[in-house]
Amino acid sequence: MTDGGARDGGFVKKTCTAMSDGRELIYFDETDDAVRVLHDPRPPAPSAPPSTIRYDAVLGEWIALAGHRQERTYLPPNDQCPLCPSRDGRHTEIPSPDYDVVVFENRFPSFAMHSPSAEEVTPAGPPFLERPGFGRCEVVCFTADHYSSFAALTPERVGTVMEAWVDRTRAMSVLPHIEQVFCFENRGEEIGVTLSHPHGQIYGYPFVTPRTRRMLDSARRHRERTWRNLFADMLAAEVRSGERVVAQTSHWTAFVPFAARWPLEVHLYPNRRVAGLPDLTGEERADFAEVYLDVLRCMQAVHADSLPYIAAWHQAPVRIDRDLGYLHLQIFSIRRAPGKLKYLAGSESAMDAFINDVSPEQAARLIREARP
Amino acid sequence: MTDGGARDGGFVKKTCTAMSDGRELIYFDETDDAVRVLHDPRPPAPSAPPSTIRYDAVLGEWIALAGHRQERTYLPPNDQCPLCPSRDGRHTEIPSPDYDVVVFENRFPSFAMHSPSAEEVTPAGPPFLERPGFGRCEVVCFTADHYSSFAALTPERVGTVMEAWVDRTRAMSVLPHIEQVFCFENRGEEIGVTLSHPHGQIYGYPFVTPRTRRMLDSARRHRERTWRNLFADMLAAEVRSGERVVAQTSHWTAFVPFAARWPLEVHLYPNRRVAGLPDLTGEERADFAEVYLDVLRCMQAVHADSLPYIAAWHQAPVRIDRDLGYLHLQIFSIRRAPGKLKYLAGSESAMDAFINDVSPEQAARLIREARP
Repeated sequence: MTDGGARDGGFVKKTCTAMSDGRELIYFDETDDAVRVLHDPRPPAPSAPPSTIRYDAVLGEWIALAGHRQERTYLPPNDQCPLCPSRDGRHTEIPSPDYDVVVFENRFPSFAMHSPSAEEVTPAGPPFLERPGFGRCEVVCFTADHYSSFAALTPERVGTVMEAWVDRTRAMSVLPHIEQVFCFENRGEEIGVTLSHPHGQIYGYPFVTPRTRRMLDSARRHRERTWRNLFADMLAAEVRSGERVVAQTSHWTAFVPFAARWPLEVHLYPNRRVAGLPDLTGEERADFAEVYLDVLRCMQAVHADSLPYIAAWHQAPVRIDRDLGYLHLQIFSIRRAPGKLKYLAGSESAMDAFINDVSPEQAARLIREARP
Repeated sequence: MTDGGARDGGFVKKTCTAMSDGRELIYFDETDDAVRVLHDPRPPAPSAPPSTIRYDAVLGEWIALAGHRQERTYLPPNDQCPLCPSRDGRHTEIPSPDYDVVVFENRFPSFAMHSPSAEEVTPAGPPFLERPGFGRCEVVCFTADHYSSFAALTPERVGTVMEAWVDRTRAMSVLPHIEQVFCFENRGEEIGVTLSHPHGQIYGYPFVTPRTRRMLDSARRHRERTWRNLFADMLAAEVRSGERVVAQTSHWTAFVPFAARWPLEVHLYPNRRVAGLPDLTGEERADFAEVYLDVLRCMQAVHADSLPYIAAWHQAPVRIDRDLGYLHLQIFSIRRAPGKLKYLAGSESAMDAFINDVSPEQAARLIREARP
């Protein structure tokens, strides 16, 4: 199935197919004449055993158990990368010899629709609650070039990635069981990335994640008190202060938050409140490519060392509190100095009490001054 | 000042002194005739600049800013360890040529009593709240032997460490501003430990930590519904199931929690509910040494590789909710297989949604089977 259409500043052609084991694979191409291989010649891989979720009654949070992920591909040599296109007789996850952006279902998913039915999960009995790990985990390859990175993409390519994020958010939002869609990128071996090919992931969770729930609970209390949106008020306060703002355009504002947890952390908000990525206008999407590439490149230039980072899209949940949420991208790094990383030790990991060694004002200055 | 006394199964002599820069240092010795050097001959080090805490209004949590920690001692060579005793003309943090257990104020504290007064912290104005980083951070050296580890201590020495934890919890609990006392050990370079000498830390926080507050909120709701203690009910359920119990004595029970977040995670509860370490009886303390050494050694024997771990004492806050809390020790490791670590990537770090690759039942089996 292919389907293409004009979009602000470009064109994206969408081609859907399935891998030999039934997992979906979708090409997002920048030209109408892109012809993609739809047939996966590999024998079907055994499908991953299902996962479950368990409720932690003390913290009131769901934890996913996905034992099969222990087997996942771990730092393969560059010539055995499963995210490269299929070339020279080597068959990877992507059957085509080239692609622009491609999305496919993760072979080692934390959540999947083929999880056991609720009846099949052995009921442990109160207070132990266990449910099927329904959901969906996808991989998003940003480029066929193994040695590239998100920061090295063209604005046009960022637009295509955005198109994929929007498409997948829409698609996952109507699947059963899924309560929240999370688009993100982990970058760098230092934070455990097991494949170096430039790629991100999309998780469709069968619950509202603990952090999102806490943020929305704060936003609800704030609205009850003030009739206003908490995120919008914080954004306005950061803009008023200006001290920690690192980039601003007509559609987006990027700042180091006043109470940043990480040595380098930037929040990137659209100036207009929307609940999720599909709600952005074409203009906002096009502008995002420019401002995000600028911010990411500045962050990478701060230290004379690699920048392991996590870029996380905070979208409102699928069904609830869409009026309280405010889409934003959180980018943060554990790099605190060249050769030095910030680790989560006792205070952070056991007590959730963060100690930041870099002041947010200093971080903002470093990021601004890194702009060429 | 020295002060000694009998305790169950041993004797601890406490000798208090101060370092040249005024930081307190306390020896905890196992023999009455231990003579310790009280004079620190080093010139006073410049005292660390103060820290502040900032309120994250979106998540409703305090974050500590401690910029000076960037300068802290980072992986010094073994012959320059600041936690070894002072010998052969080299002066370390501890002036004596030997010690059993010693506690002193951290030179690079995240919280300190000499933080600026509330008036001195530039008021940023709403919604930005910033307060002095009042509190206290101490280092606990478990042994003078640089190459030892907690798991290699004798039960008698664990008793002396326990004596130090109890003493410091009592002392910090009556200091102004301190709301919670946290005794913990970070072990292993893989989780960012910057000094390899066997040691732990004690934090006196000027707020109830986010995780403790969430746990107590759950416990409050549970008590309102059931008139019962949540932690006691979970412990009883784990004991009833037995599937995840890894050690049990007349005074303590260790189990992998039903919804464990980490590949290896054990919670160790006294069978009798107490709010904090000072509430344990002499018998419970003596029994703790045996059961914890057993559990820690089993955990370390699971993988044919080093075990980076965090051991975290969850005590009730100093002033509030002491009737809701239940003292327990949480021990967890990021080791998921030999040569492989569990990293906190996008799902965990940005959404607080944990994916565990090892089932709690499997982890419990591995720990039990590792017992010699």
